Amino acid sequence: MTDDNVVNGERQAHLPRRNLLAAAGVLGLTAGAVTVATTTRSEPARAAAGVTKKITIYAEALPNNQVGYGLTPGGATVPGPVLEMYEGDTLEITLVNTTNQRLSIHPHGVDYSTDSDGAPFNGSFNNPGETRKYIWRSHEMTATTGRRFTPGSAGYWHYHDHALGGDHGTGGLIRGLYGALIVRRRGDILPDKQFTVVFNDMTINNKVAPNTPMFEANLGEKVEWIAIGHGNFFHTFHLHAHRWADNRTGYLESLTDPSQVIDNKDLNPGNAFGFQVIAGEAVGPGAWMYHCHVQGHSDGGMAGVFLVRNADGTMPPGAQEAIDRFQGHQHAAAQKAAQNAQNAETHAHGGTGS
Amino acid sequence: MTDDNVVNGERQAHLPRRNLLAAAGVLGLTAGAVTVATTTRSEPARAAAGVTKKITIYAEALPNNQVGYGLTPGGATVPGPVLEMYEGDTLEITLVNTTNQRLSIHPHGVDYSTDSDGAPFNGSFNNPGETRKYIWRSHEMTATTGRRFTPGSAGYWHYHDHALGGDHGTGGLIRGLYGALIVRRRGDILPDKQFTVVFNDMTINNKVAPNTPMFEANLGEKVEWIAIGHGNFFHTFHLHAHRWADNRTGYLESLTDPSQVIDNKDLNPGNAFGFQVIAGEAVGPGAWMYHCHVQGHSDGGMAGVFLVRNADGTMPPGAQEAIDRFQGHQHAAAQKAAQNAQNAETHAHGGTGS
Amino acid sequence: MTDDNVVNGERQAHLPRRNLLAAAGVLGLTAGAVTVATTTRSEPARAAAGVTKKITIYAEALPNNQVGYGLTPGGATVPGPVLEMYEGDTLEITLVNTTNQRLSIHPHGVDYSTDSDGAPFNGSFNNPGETRKYIWRSHEMTATTGRRFTPGSAGYWHYHDHALGGDHGTGGLIRGLYGALIVRRRGDILPDKQFTVVFNDMTINNKVAPNTPMFEANLGEKVEWIAIGHGNFFHTFHLHAHRWADNRTGYLESLTDPSQVIDNKDLNPGNAFGFQVIAGEAVGPGAWMYHCHVQGHSDGGMAGVFLVRNADGTMPPGAQEAIDRFQGHQHAAAQKAAQNAQNAETHAHGGTGS
Repeated sequence: MTDDNVVNGERQAHLPRRNLLAAAGVLGLTAGAVTVATTTRSEPARAAAGVTKKITIYAEALPNNQVGYGLTPGGATVPGPVLEMYEGDTLEITLVNTTNQRLSIHPHGVDYSTDSDGAPFNGSFNNPGETRKYIWRSHEMTATTGRRFTPGSAGYWHYHDHALGGDHGTGGLIRGLYGALIVRRRGDILPDKQFTVVFNDMTINNKVAPNTPMFEANLGEKVEWIAIGHGNFFHTFHLHAHRWADNRTGYLESLTDPSQVIDNKDLNPGNAFGFQVIAGEAVGPGAWMYHCHVQGHSDGGMAGVFLVRNADGTMPPGAQEAIDRFQGHQHAAAQKAAQNAQNAETHAHGGTGS
Repeated sequence: MTDDNVVNGERQAHLPRRNLLAAAGVLGLTAGAVTVATTTRSEPARAAAGVTKKITIYAEALPNNQVGYGLTPGGATVPGPVLEMYEGDTLEITLVNTTNQRLSIHPHGVDYSTDSDGAPFNGSFNNPGETRKYIWRSHEMTATTGRRFTPGSAGYWHYHDHALGGDHGTGGLIRGLYGALIVRRRGDILPDKQFTVVFNDMTINNKVAPNTPMFEANLGEKVEWIAIGHGNFFHTFHLHAHRWADNRTGYLESLTDPSQVIDNKDLNPGNAFGFQVIAGEAVGPGAWMYHCHVQGHSDGGMAGVFLVRNADGTMPPGAQEAIDRFQGHQHAAAQKAAQNAQNAETHAHGGTGS
Repeated sequence: MTDDNVVNGERQAHLPRRNLLAAAGVLGLTAGAVTVATTTRSEPARAAAGVTKKITIYAEALPNNQVGYGLTPGGATVPGPVLEMYEGDTLEITLVNTTNQRLSIHPHGVDYSTDSDGAPFNGSFNNPGETRKYIWRSHEMTATTGRRFTPGSAGYWHYHDHALGGDHGTGGLIRGLYGALIVRRRGDILPDKQFTVVFNDMTINNKVAPNTPMFEANLGEKVEWIAIGHGNFFHTFHLHAHRWADNRTGYLESLTDPSQVIDNKDLNPGNAFGFQVIAGEAVGPGAWMYHCHVQGHSDGGMAGVFLVRNADGTMPPGAQEAIDRFQGHQHAAAQKAAQNAQNAETHAHGGTGS
C-alpha cells in the first residue's frame, strides 16, 4: 500500500487517486472512484446515512528532521495522506505517536468534540509514544429561516499538528505534520488526479525548487488541486494556463453562478481551498509552472512544475527541455534555510528520534 | 445603559445583543430584536421607508493611552459600540471629541457626502474639543441591465478614526478608535449573541492573551461574529469547531449557493466580514479557541476563548480547566509591545488628556 | 492615437475608454462601445463565433529607468494599455522588444500554448531587440456533469513581463511592465470610464502620493476599476464612498446573488479583480480617496484621488481645495525609495537603453 501512502511526496511523479478510499473500501457511495479513469464520475444526489470509517495514522520521524503522518508504519509522508469523506460520514482516527515529542491531529471544517480538538488548550494531544483516538463527524446543510441553509461540512479542508513545539503546533508545522482533508457533497465530480500543494513558510511541501513536487497528468484528465497555507508569511498561488471558479468546487455551479474565475489566489496560514481543472484544456499539453506570485518567493524557490503529458502519456515537445532547464536551477540558499528552520525546531525540543 | 456600552470589552463575558437598537427604540422593523432569545427571529421581506436615527458618540480617553468611542459620557469602549441599521435607514451621528487631539469617524459601506467623509483630505474631522455631525445614509440594491443589480448597503462593515496622528488615522487605530457597523437587509436572520473581533496589529481588540476577550454563548444560540482588520500586518482568523459560508451572511442563501464553506479567513487592514454560527452545533459545548492562524501571531498572543456553555448556562465538563490553563499563559512581551505602541503614539502627539 | 496609448498614465487625468477597441475596430459585438456615453450599453447574450484581432505591442524604455508596454512606437505607458476581448476571441500579439534586456509578455486567465507562455521556463520570451508573436485565445464556459460548467475565460485579468531580471520577471515588474486584460462575457455591462490601479510594491502605478493617478469621472457615469497586485508586499484596496459586489463583475448578478458587498479588498501579488460603480451614486460628487488600507502604506504614499465632478463636468464645491491640500503633501522618502528600486534593478542588469 506504499503507493497510497506517498501522496505528493518525492517518490513518484504520478498520483493514482486511490488514497484512503481504496485502502478502506467502505466510505459511502464511492465505489466508482476506485479505478482511475478519464471519464467524469459523479455520485447520486441522494445520500444514504453516513458511514463510519476507522483508520490508524502513524506520526513518525522522517529524514532531515521532518515529522509526517502516514497510514502504515514506515509510510509517513510530507504532506500526509489525503483523507476523504462524504457529508454525513464519520472518521475515527487512531493516532499513534511514534516520536519523542507530544503532537496531535487537528482538523479544519469537520465536527469534533473538545476531546478530539487536537489542541493542548483542551488537553487533546498525544504524549510521546502515546496512542489516542480522534473522532471527526460531518453533516449536510440544514434548512433554516427564509430558504437559507446553515452550512454543512462539504469543502476542501485540512488537518495538522497543534501541539508539537507549542500550543499552536508551530514546530509540527515546520517539520511537515500537515495534510489535506476533503469532505464531498453527494453529486460532486470526482477527479482522475489529485495534488496537495502546501505553501509552508518559504517552501512548497517542505521543498524548494528544483526539488518541489512535479505534478503530472495526461491531457484531458480531471485534476483536483488542494492548496493549503501554513506558517508566518502571506502567499499567492498561481497556476499557468489553467483557471477555476473561486467558490467551493472550482466549477461554476449554475449558469448564474456569479463567482469570479481566477488563476491566482491568496494562500495564507490556516487557509485551504480546492478546485478541479481539465489538464491542458484549451491550451494543450506541456510543462506548466505553478508558483507563489510574491516575487521574492518565486525567485527564492517557491515554484514547481505541472506536467501535462499527451493524452496517451507520452511527453509533448519541449516539455523535457523545460523540466531539464528547471532542474538545473539551484536555490541552495533557500533549501538550506528551510533545513536550518527544521533543525532549529528539533534542537529546541530535544530531537525527535523514535 | 452601561451594559449596552460595553461591547466585547473586558467588563463582561456575556454580550446582550441590544446595543444601539434598544437605546434608540426606533430603527425600522426591529422591535422583535430587543429581547434576547434563542429562537430565530427574522424581519419581513418588504420594507417600510427607511428610518432616521440620531445618536451621540463620545470619543474619550481610556486607560493605557487608549481612545475609544462610546454612546454615553464615560462609556467609551474598545472596540466601540456595534452600530446597526437596515438598508434605507439614516444614522445621524453627533461626534463629541472630548480629547485634545483631532479625530474623526469614518465608515465603510454606507453613503456619506464629502463633509461626512471623516477624512482630513476633505476637511471632515473634529478638532480637539469640537463637536461635529456626520450623516450616514444607506440604500437597497437597484435593478440595472440584464437582471443585475447595483449593490445596496447591506453588509458587515465598520467605522474608525481617520484623523488622529495622521491623515489616515494611524494613531487613532493603534489606540482603539474602531468599531463594527452592520447594515441589514429586510429578512436577515437576527442573532442571539454578537461579538466584535478586531485584529489590530498584533492584538485582538487591543489585548493579547490571556487578556483577549472571552466570548460566551449557550449551546444552540445564534452567534454573530463581526471580524475587522486594522494596522500593518496580514492575519487569518480561525475559529475552532464552527464553520460558515464565505458570503455576505455566513448562511448558504439557497440550495445552489456556490460559496465555499470555511473556518479560516484572511483578515487584513480595512477589511471586515461577518457570519453567524449556531454555538456548539454538531460539536457540543466546550471552551473553543479562536485565533490568528499566522504561527508567530498565535504564539505571540493573538488567541482567545469562545466559551459555549450548556444550553442551561452551566459550565460543561473540562471548560473551566481549559480556561484556567489558558489564563495561566503569559504573553508579557507581547502585551508590553502593544502598550509601547500606544505610548509612542501618545507621546508623538503631545498626550491625550480630556 | 496617443490618447489611446496613455492609460492611467500621467499625461491626462481623464480617461476616454476607447483603448484597443477603437484602434482595431474589429473585436466582436463592441461597436457600441466606441463612443463615450453615460447610458448603459450591453451586448446581446448570444455570441457569434469569436473574432481574431492582431496587434503590435512595443516594449520600450521610459524615463526614470522604467520600461512599459505601448500600442505605438514611443507610446509606452505604465501601466500598459487595457486589452479587451470577448470570450471566444483570439488576440495575436506581436511583441517588439526595443530594449537591451530580455523580456516577455505573460497573461493571466486566457488560453495560451507553451510557446506563448511568456516564461523563460518554456523558452518563451524576446531577446534584446527581438520581435516575437504571442497568441491568446479564450473560450466560453462549457457544460459538464450535473448542471455545472467548466469556467470560461471571462474576467478581469492582467498581463506582465515574466523574463526581465529573472525567470519570474521581477525586474520587469519593478520597472512597469504590467497592464490590465479584460475578457468580457456577452451581455456584460460596458463602462463609461475605465481605470487601472496597480499596487506594485509600495507604489500605485509606480507612483507615490501626491503623484499617484487622479481618476476622474462625472456624477452618474459608470466607472470600471481594474485592480492588480505585484511585488513583495500584501495590500488592501479601499475606495471611499463607493461599494461593489465581491464577484466577477461587481454587480449582484441576481436577486439571490449571495456575494458579500465590500469597499475594501485584498490586492496581493499576481491577483486581479474588477468592478463597476456609478460615480457618486447615493453620495454625490466630490474628491474621494482611494488607498491601500495598510496604515504604513497609506501613510507612506499609497493613496490617490478619485474625482467625481458634477454631471456637467464642473468642479463640485470643496473638491479643488481637497486636491490642492493633497498635492501639497510630500512623500519624498517614499518616491526616492521607489526610484532607488528601479535604479538598482537597472544597474544589476546593465542598463536598458534602446
